[in-house]
Amino acid sequence: MKVKVLFSSGKDSSLAAILLEPFFDVKLVTINFGIVPTFNIARETAKKLGFSCSEKVLDPSFIIEAASMLIEDGSPGRAINHLHNSALEAVCSETDTTIVADGTRRDDKVPLLTVSEVRSLEDRHKIKYIRPLMGYGRSAVDALAETHLQIIQGESDEVEKADYEVELRSFIRKQYINGDSIVDSLFPKHIQSHVINKKIS
Amino acid sequence: MKVKVLFSSGKDSSLAAILLEPFFDVKLVTINFGIVPTFNIARETAKKLGFSCSEKVLDPSFIIEAASMLIEDGSPGRAINHLHNSALEAVCSETDTTIVADGTRRDDKVPLLTVSEVRSLEDRHKIKYIRPLMGYGRSAVDALAETHLQIIQGESDEVEKADYEVELRSFIRKQYINGDSIVDSLFPKHIQSHVINKKIS
Repeated sequence: MKVKVLFSSGKDSSLAAILLEPFFDVKLVTINFGIVPTFNIARETAKKLGFSCSEKVLDPSFIIEAASMLIEDGSPGRAINHLHNSALEAVCSETDTTIVADGTRRDDKVPLLTVSEVRSLEDRHKIKYIRPLMGYGRSAVDALAETHLQIIQGESDEVEKADYEVELRSFIRKQYINGDSIVDSLFPKHIQSHVINKKIS
Repeated sequence: MKVKVLFSSGKDSSLAAILLEPFFDVKLVTINFGIVPTFNIARETAKKLGFSCSEKVLDPSFIIEAASMLIEDGSPGRAINHLHNSALEAVCSETDTTIVADGTRRDDKVPLLTVSEVRSLEDRHKIKYIRPLMGYGRSAVDALAETHLQIIQGESDEVEKADYEVELRSFIRKQYINGDSIVDSLFPKHIQSHVINKKIS
């Protein structure tokens, strides 16, 4: 059974792929909105984990919409959810998609679909949506990561990743007057992880 | 990392164990409340799946309490949750427990802990509680079962299992006046699954 896993090169999507690998034919997909070229970092990390990775390029209009939401709300939650939903909708719409997965987990607040959004996604596209980490809390995820991954951690602006936030931040910095200060105030710095390799057990 | 998986010999707890097997040292635990001897069926199924299985015997008072809840409510939801919570508390209280898992899944209503109950369980016992199927919907679980398990299905009274409902039903049939009609009316018949072997891929 082939499963397409949304992949950012971060800890969670890497672990989701690793948990699925013994049971599914895992294909990673990294999403790009045409703002920052993030495919190289995703492909490189995927290769080190032993997976193939393709790129799905979506329209920059999603980033423009997300930026407006961010400014309106004064926080990035709805914007990031919008990008994640758009990514899922796009991958689920591909004719060869039967199972889609991502790295969202129990303690995540964003991005996260509600149970009814999950069922709607599955019903409308006639696909299965699997979230392998949804039954794992923070400490269980950390224990898995410790066992299976070599990780670099750093503040969110410094870690190279292929996630939505990278492109959204970059767009706002370039396109908005006072973009730098908007990003600095609305994206509180937090520790991000980038996977550099698999640990050999 | 050793994980104790609550095991009923049903499809869901079997799949939970199988999903964890590549990443954890899986030990199955079957719960018994002293009403019906269910250990043999659990141990036999566990052996066919390639796992060891121990029995944790809890006090029959939990079944007595659950039966009262069932009669009071006119439906088995709270009673089954009470038995599941009691089982989790007992296993989490063992001094050698660091990780506990079960077969609850996304579309389950009962037994199911709320997010705050899950966090409370983890915090109070300083353990990790993993629900490997929590990110899997019904059709994804069915696809996994189809690939990995040989299953017998039948109406809930006919399938031999080592789950809470078997003991609760038996207790009510024996101890309550009109026990048979209480069980027949309050446990609507539904299709239960019992795992008889692993499929060799």
